[in-house]
Amino acid sequence: MMRIWPSISDDGAYNGRVKVTDIGEFGLIRRLRSYTGLEPPADLVVGIGDDCAVWRAGDQCLLATTDTLVEGVHFIPDVAPWADVGWRVLAVNVSDIAAMGGEPLFALVTLALPGETSVDSIDALYAGLGECATEYGVTVAGGDIVSAPQVAVTVALIGRAQMRDGIPLLMRRDGARAGDVIAVTGTLGDSAAGLRRLREGTPAADALVRAHLRPRTPLALAQEAARLGVCCAIDVSDGLVQDIGHTCEMSRLGADVSAADIPISPALRSAYPEEALALACGGGEDYELVLVGEEHRITELSDANPGALTVIGRMTERHSGRVRLLDSGGAEIDVDTRGWDHLRHDP
Amino acid sequence: MMRIWPSISDDGAYNGRVKVTDIGEFGLIRRLRSYTGLEPPADLVVGIGDDCAVWRAGDQCLLATTDTLVEGVHFIPDVAPWADVGWRVLAVNVSDIAAMGGEPLFALVTLALPGETSVDSIDALYAGLGECATEYGVTVAGGDIVSAPQVAVTVALIGRAQMRDGIPLLMRRDGARAGDVIAVTGTLGDSAAGLRRLREGTPAADALVRAHLRPRTPLALAQEAARLGVCCAIDVSDGLVQDIGHTCEMSRLGADVSAADIPISPALRSAYPEEALALACGGGEDYELVLVGEEHRITELSDANPGALTVIGRMTERHSGRVRLLDSGGAEIDVDTRGWDHLRHDP
Repeated sequence: MMRIWPSISDDGAYNGRVKVTDIGEFGLIRRLRSYTGLEPPADLVVGIGDDCAVWRAGDQCLLATTDTLVEGVHFIPDVAPWADVGWRVLAVNVSDIAAMGGEPLFALVTLALPGETSVDSIDALYAGLGECATEYGVTVAGGDIVSAPQVAVTVALIGRAQMRDGIPLLMRRDGARAGDVIAVTGTLGDSAAGLRRLREGTPAADALVRAHLRPRTPLALAQEAARLGVCCAIDVSDGLVQDIGHTCEMSRLGADVSAADIPISPALRSAYPEEALALACGGGEDYELVLVGEEHRITELSDANPGALTVIGRMTERHSGRVRLLDSGGAEIDVDTRGWDHLRHDP
Repeated sequence: MMRIWPSISDDGAYNGRVKVTDIGEFGLIRRLRSYTGLEPPADLVVGIGDDCAVWRAGDQCLLATTDTLVEGVHFIPDVAPWADVGWRVLAVNVSDIAAMGGEPLFALVTLALPGETSVDSIDALYAGLGECATEYGVTVAGGDIVSAPQVAVTVALIGRAQMRDGIPLLMRRDGARAGDVIAVTGTLGDSAAGLRRLREGTPAADALVRAHLRPRTPLALAQEAARLGVCCAIDVSDGLVQDIGHTCEMSRLGADVSAADIPISPALRSAYPEEALALACGGGEDYELVLVGEEHRITELSDANPGALTVIGRMTERHSGRVRLLDSGGAEIDVDTRGWDHLRHDP
């Protein structure tokens, strides 16, 4: 979850005993850049602000990302099986590589855990992580193990871009152009609904709960999109509207999204009919992809992969930086689409 | 701190409610490999078990490592200034890259922290991290920020090997040969002594305390060693004897170390005269380097850098896997040299 760099305002005015909740995750990231503000080296292609950092290494172009799951914040040990925690912590990193059209290669796994943790739990966590590594062709190449009051698992994942004639085929948050079509993979909101059901005690076999515990990022489809010339993508981690908003900010465009076209699964619609749209727009952690590109490229991708993509809107010159949700008559509607800012919304 | 892979025994017999303290950090790492046991890809040069993972990327050879500092475990917020925590978390990663003779390039920084953390603390942490990045030429290229009950900072650092005629100039834990000379940089035990003083309330300006809070890994010297053909190195993180032990296991050799030759600073000798040798042998977290290589190469390096290196012993065919500390008469002596296994020795 290499967070976007909001181009708005400045936190310089904060001082004294301001807490991190007062400025949020994005404020903190903004400050980090100001303290590590060396002139970026020439071989750095993409720095802070996209799904991955990207740099040139000889004739290759490499990607790196990192994501953490913390016990009690991102998972509840008595509720989420350890194997699923292991799967998920790697899958969310694979999702970042997919969002740029790359190929995941090597993972470093950091385990922070209390000494009294049962070895069985860690075995299960490793097993789930190993399943995910096999699924996506990732090699666990190293890591670190440290003592901590509660379990936290961090993965740093390194991958490479697909190349054509020496040019990396990258999908970037700032790669959208006005008139580009916005499409999404899969269905949205299932993960947030699954988390709610999990907290209510629904077993892990439930389809919505599975969507939360075992996200399956469409890696091959993402790579195909990059090869077809789709230039902008982001994974749905914070929530659909917030994530499209990140591409708007970085591409200095607006987005018009047709609410009725947002793909919602029958399971979600039946479980939470009143809230299905809000969960799809703002639930987050779906790890599906938003793909933004010229219409003919999105159509070609969609035709080659029937049912995999849904077109939901277009990028616009107007309303720069804003995502407008529209009803079938074209009027703007209001849905509670607050994304998941990990520091403002502690559970 | 990409841990060594002990080649001894097997934890297969453990089951039931065994805790991680029962098998320790190295037992856990051993188990990880069994769950992610894909055939390593051809471009992976070094996997789990050395200071860094290493892989070929086109005509380059890249390195990656990761290290975490956890509040209350690796630092005490009221005692260690935040700026020093920021410096240290990057410096310990630079140390891993140095130990293989590489050049650090890009860092991903993961901050896990409670919402009530003061922004001033994080600013200070960033400032220290930025100083270290400037010192070692590292670019912070991304990261992740998550909510957690206490502060933990994780850095994943990517670097590259120096190359000559298409061959990476790597120093590896398994690169030692019988008869090779063992040398160390700087002085040892200062960091452990500094931690003790810090806990007793000594100010951060004290030389021993500085050694703990602001480790300065000799990166340029390490790169020069690799260019001169020194083939084996490790950084002193667990403690001198334990770390030399890791090179013994990986190289299937023994080591004879002359206790009287281990470099101890006047500050340490004067502060803890009785325990200076034990702290130097087992204290750990010095982030100095052990360099193991042919005598003429170590001599050449030492001559070019007067005072930077101290020869303390030799690798031997006998006593494979063991480090023997010898007195001036050649008799083996016993010093409490327990290294810092992060799961067995909770503070």
